Amino acid sequence: MDVTKYNFYEELESILEAIEGSTFLSIDGEFTGLDAEGSCHIAPFDTPPERYSKMKNGSTDFLLLQFGLCAFKVDEEKHLYEAKPYNFYLFPSQSHRNAPDKRFMCQSSSIDFLVSHGFDFNKVFREGIPYLTSQQEHEMKSFLEQKHSEQNNQSFTVMEVPENQREFLEGICEKINTFMEEDDAEPLEIKDCNGLQRKLIYQTVEEKYPLARLETRTGEKKERYLILHGAKDAEELAKIDRERQAQQMMELDIQVGFTKVIQAITKSEKLVVGHNMILDILHCMSHFYGPLPNDLEDFKSITSTVFPKLIDTKLMANTPPLKEFIELSSLGEMHQTLQSKPFNPVIIKVAPGFEKYSEEASSLHEAGFDAFMTGSCFATMCKFLGDCQKPVTDFLLPSSPVIKAFVNKLYLMRIADIQYVTLDGPDLEVNRDHVFHVTFPKEWRASDLYTLFEPYGNIQISWLSNISAYVGLHNKKNSKIAFEVLSKENHSFQVTSYAFHHRNKTLKLSTAGKRQHSEEFDPLPNKMTRNIPVPNAEGAFESPVKKTVTEMSKPGKIQPEDKTGKKLFDESTDW
Amino acid sequence: MDVTKYNFYEELESILEAIEGSTFLSIDGEFTGLDAEGSCHIAPFDTPPERYSKMKNGSTDFLLLQFGLCAFKVDEEKHLYEAKPYNFYLFPSQSHRNAPDKRFMCQSSSIDFLVSHGFDFNKVFREGIPYLTSQQEHEMKSFLEQKHSEQNNQSFTVMEVPENQREFLEGICEKINTFMEEDDAEPLEIKDCNGLQRKLIYQTVEEKYPLARLETRTGEKKERYLILHGAKDAEELAKIDRERQAQQMMELDIQVGFTKVIQAITKSEKLVVGHNMILDILHCMSHFYGPLPNDLEDFKSITSTVFPKLIDTKLMANTPPLKEFIELSSLGEMHQTLQSKPFNPVIIKVAPGFEKYSEEASSLHEAGFDAFMTGSCFATMCKFLGDCQKPVTDFLLPSSPVIKAFVNKLYLMRIADIQYVTLDGPDLEVNRDHVFHVTFPKEWRASDLYTLFEPYGNIQISWLSNISAYVGLHNKKNSKIAFEVLSKENHSFQVTSYAFHHRNKTLKLSTAGKRQHSEEFDPLPNKMTRNIPVPNAEGAFESPVKKTVTEMSKPGKIQPEDKTGKKLFDESTDW
Repeated sequence: MDVTKYNFYEELESILEAIEGSTFLSIDGEFTGLDAEGSCHIAPFDTPPERYSKMKNGSTDFLLLQFGLCAFKVDEEKHLYEAKPYNFYLFPSQSHRNAPDKRFMCQSSSIDFLVSHGFDFNKVFREGIPYLTSQQEHEMKSFLEQKHSEQNNQSFTVMEVPENQREFLEGICEKINTFMEEDDAEPLEIKDCNGLQRKLIYQTVEEKYPLARLETRTGEKKERYLILHGAKDAEELAKIDRERQAQQMMELDIQVGFTKVIQAITKSEKLVVGHNMILDILHCMSHFYGPLPNDLEDFKSITSTVFPKLIDTKLMANTPPLKEFIELSSLGEMHQTLQSKPFNPVIIKVAPGFEKYSEEASSLHEAGFDAFMTGSCFATMCKFLGDCQKPVTDFLLPSSPVIKAFVNKLYLMRIADIQYVTLDGPDLEVNRDHVFHVTFPKEWRASDLYTLFEPYGNIQISWLSNISAYVGLHNKKNSKIAFEVLSKENHSFQVTSYAFHHRNKTLKLSTAGKRQHSEEFDPLPNKMTRNIPVPNAEGAFESPVKKTVTEMSKPGKIQPEDKTGKKLFDESTDW
Repeated sequence: MDVTKYNFYEELESILEAIEGSTFLSIDGEFTGLDAEGSCHIAPFDTPPERYSKMKNGSTDFLLLQFGLCAFKVDEEKHLYEAKPYNFYLFPSQSHRNAPDKRFMCQSSSIDFLVSHGFDFNKVFREGIPYLTSQQEHEMKSFLEQKHSEQNNQSFTVMEVPENQREFLEGICEKINTFMEEDDAEPLEIKDCNGLQRKLIYQTVEEKYPLARLETRTGEKKERYLILHGAKDAEELAKIDRERQAQQMMELDIQVGFTKVIQAITKSEKLVVGHNMILDILHCMSHFYGPLPNDLEDFKSITSTVFPKLIDTKLMANTPPLKEFIELSSLGEMHQTLQSKPFNPVIIKVAPGFEKYSEEASSLHEAGFDAFMTGSCFATMCKFLGDCQKPVTDFLLPSSPVIKAFVNKLYLMRIADIQYVTLDGPDLEVNRDHVFHVTFPKEWRASDLYTLFEPYGNIQISWLSNISAYVGLHNKKNSKIAFEVLSKENHSFQVTSYAFHHRNKTLKLSTAGKRQHSEEFDPLPNKMTRNIPVPNAEGAFESPVKKTVTEMSKPGKIQPEDKTGKKLFDESTDW
């Protein structure tokens, strides 16, 4: 079901009921972009705090345009789930005058991608539901309360009426005089005034009409006009003021908009499932909660208060035993894989009124549909894991210990040895003794690194700048001897251990007040080069690689098409 | 006439002819936003370099979505102009793989504004004409040439074929075998492969089919697929390579797109007219020429090479004798004023095929229409100035000395004493002896400043931060005595001369490598407060102001609605 600002309040109650009555929820977001220009890209030797920091700085200036929410309710007798997929259009339009005038980033390739999948930008900009972070809501409420308590104690600069405005102003006064004499008249509309004229009217009314109240409204074409309310006496004036204040509080409540849905998810404490969901969660937190903290541990702690139970289906798909049967874990491909042996897809019945989607008619990359698909995949994967149990547990529920192992672990793309960030505990610590930090002259290319490490077998390069890289040995047994030999030599290059370099970098960062401006975090010198090859999620890194070498992969060089890895974030394959 | 990527090349020749044959051109732009969050706002005591710097840093991250160009050709016999208004939809889609993946900012209120005026975002994102800066075009061309010269000398990482991909790859090889045996076959399309499979096909073809060439294409839904070309012998292979190289150069030429129109305007050396056009010019330069320089003088010199003759109708409207008859100089209001006495509107005939616009049927805030209106106003203002001459010169042409006084001066909004920036010479130097820099405790409000300066008459405040402001005396005669008294006192506040403070600031800026982080350039502490009152373009500053004081206008305080000045940039009134 599409939900816009036009049917949001009509549907809100049933949305809240669907959330409250669900067995689990699934979500998905569509964004105006994925990574900022000049931001640091995700890399295979990132640690969870590094990855968080890169995503926070590189991704959250974009806007969340569409939020998919699907409520799944199990029918254990009939062995099926009933699904209610909602597709919310979101836009922070400034319908409330004191609402923040949000600036956001867009990325051309993401806009292209959405356009190619039929995304309706006119609809989202025109009909999007507004929202506020909890912090903004609180600020605006305090402001309104203060303003209301100061009502009638305001004074403002009074300016002399310019010669050419006198006639205009007299005309307005005549209209107001007539209006004030009428009984039970509708408020008076004063249109077609420019800013100067509106100011003159305000000061005139304040001066001459103590029983009148002005307010400014914004019309359909964003033109401003005035509304004048008239009272018979002080009592009626007080009533007008009270009504206006109540009206303004209601308008603020409307501006809170979609944030109410997130608040209801929090309150329900339901399990929330997503596919490769870390970016969705970052956006949810920054759009509906408040600015993201710099520190990953702080992020974990506030996220747990908003989403107490999360599961990432991409992590499930990349973990045994499911991993053995799911070769490609992008949502569409994974869903397809789950339709046939050894899997046994769970029956999903779409609830009446939600017929927009079915698993057959694909609307892939519409948030509501993707949320629906994600939940369906989750149900089928749970069933598979249940079938593996002894005794067999059909319809394994999220409360099962088998599922619990996945709770609050969000998948991290393309890190071979740390597959996820743990939201409710410390992250994995891994041994990277086979990884070295290498600095070299800027003329070096991949082939030079391959030559340098040739005696120790195949390597994986993760470029940090045009004069440094992390190099990982494929054959970990050679780590010690490689380090002993290469770290001693003192040529044009320098090799240090990953641990040593990482410790130093972390130290530097913390002395620099956690601002990330070390060499590794600098943007690449040439902005046209973004396709640094990294192992793909399907495990290409683990495949033995012959030593024919590419020079295409080095930062600072524009890359020929197609032969190297893919773009770091690629909507069509990564999700 | 609407021009999108679908009819751009069809129309290009006639567009270039219209430019070349015109008497003058008028332009207008529509943007995704006006000022960045936390950027410094334009202020009444800005100098031209300060204003340029603020606009460069605050405005040019937004996108130019629509470019209006209207070619006006005088018919001196018939005493009329023929107009050809073009409305170009622009979007930097990544249709060319090596094209930059542009990131750009949007501002909610600007999106709201465009939506309320019927702007079609789906059309611009789907059908927008691409463009490149001259610099990008040059880089991409060099890159392609280098790539073509290296053709067939590439080598890349060869990976072992994973077990589960062997069958797939054998199937592909069979298809290729059949294809290579056929005569004059169409190139072979290989669809539905993931990234890993495409890589495997590439390495297989390189290894086993020396007479075949692969290329990757992107489909409608952004999915990638492969095309295989087959040759009989080395000669045919070389022909395929040449054709592909030519094709790639042509694709680059298509990506240059709209920039060709700007290049044609440059080449034509025609007069280009705009209304309040400095932002349009900044966007044109940064979108079609290259990154804007930090220094205003550098900007002037490169702008003169691209637009050798510019006229701003807002400056004309705010300069005597026109100023005396044009009270409001926003485009719509100015156009309306120019329709009646003492003005005598010039007849504008819309050329056949350009019937979309007429001066009666308003499409205000569509770039093509605004350009058309701007040119019409310019023609009528020229006629008026001609009528004022002795002898009367009907149809005053841009080459007239009367008009020449306006050439290459761009209007600066809301600076009382420096109305324009001069592109082909030094800017005005003005005396600001009546202006003081004041620092004070953060508790101070406007009323405290009014009290402080009370003995010297009315003042104008321009807040710089929550502890500093420029204060201008309305009565300049009191400057000396005010300075003598206030600068000596040593209380909680400090008063220095504008000249002293400005000199110091400029010094600080130049030692800080021109990065603007002095106190005055810091973002306001409270982001919800943007409505610092400034004199409006209609001259409110010059009106005597009674000393009833507002406290609403101080930065750091959220402002009640409506009683103070307007938003600093306001599409509906400023343009």
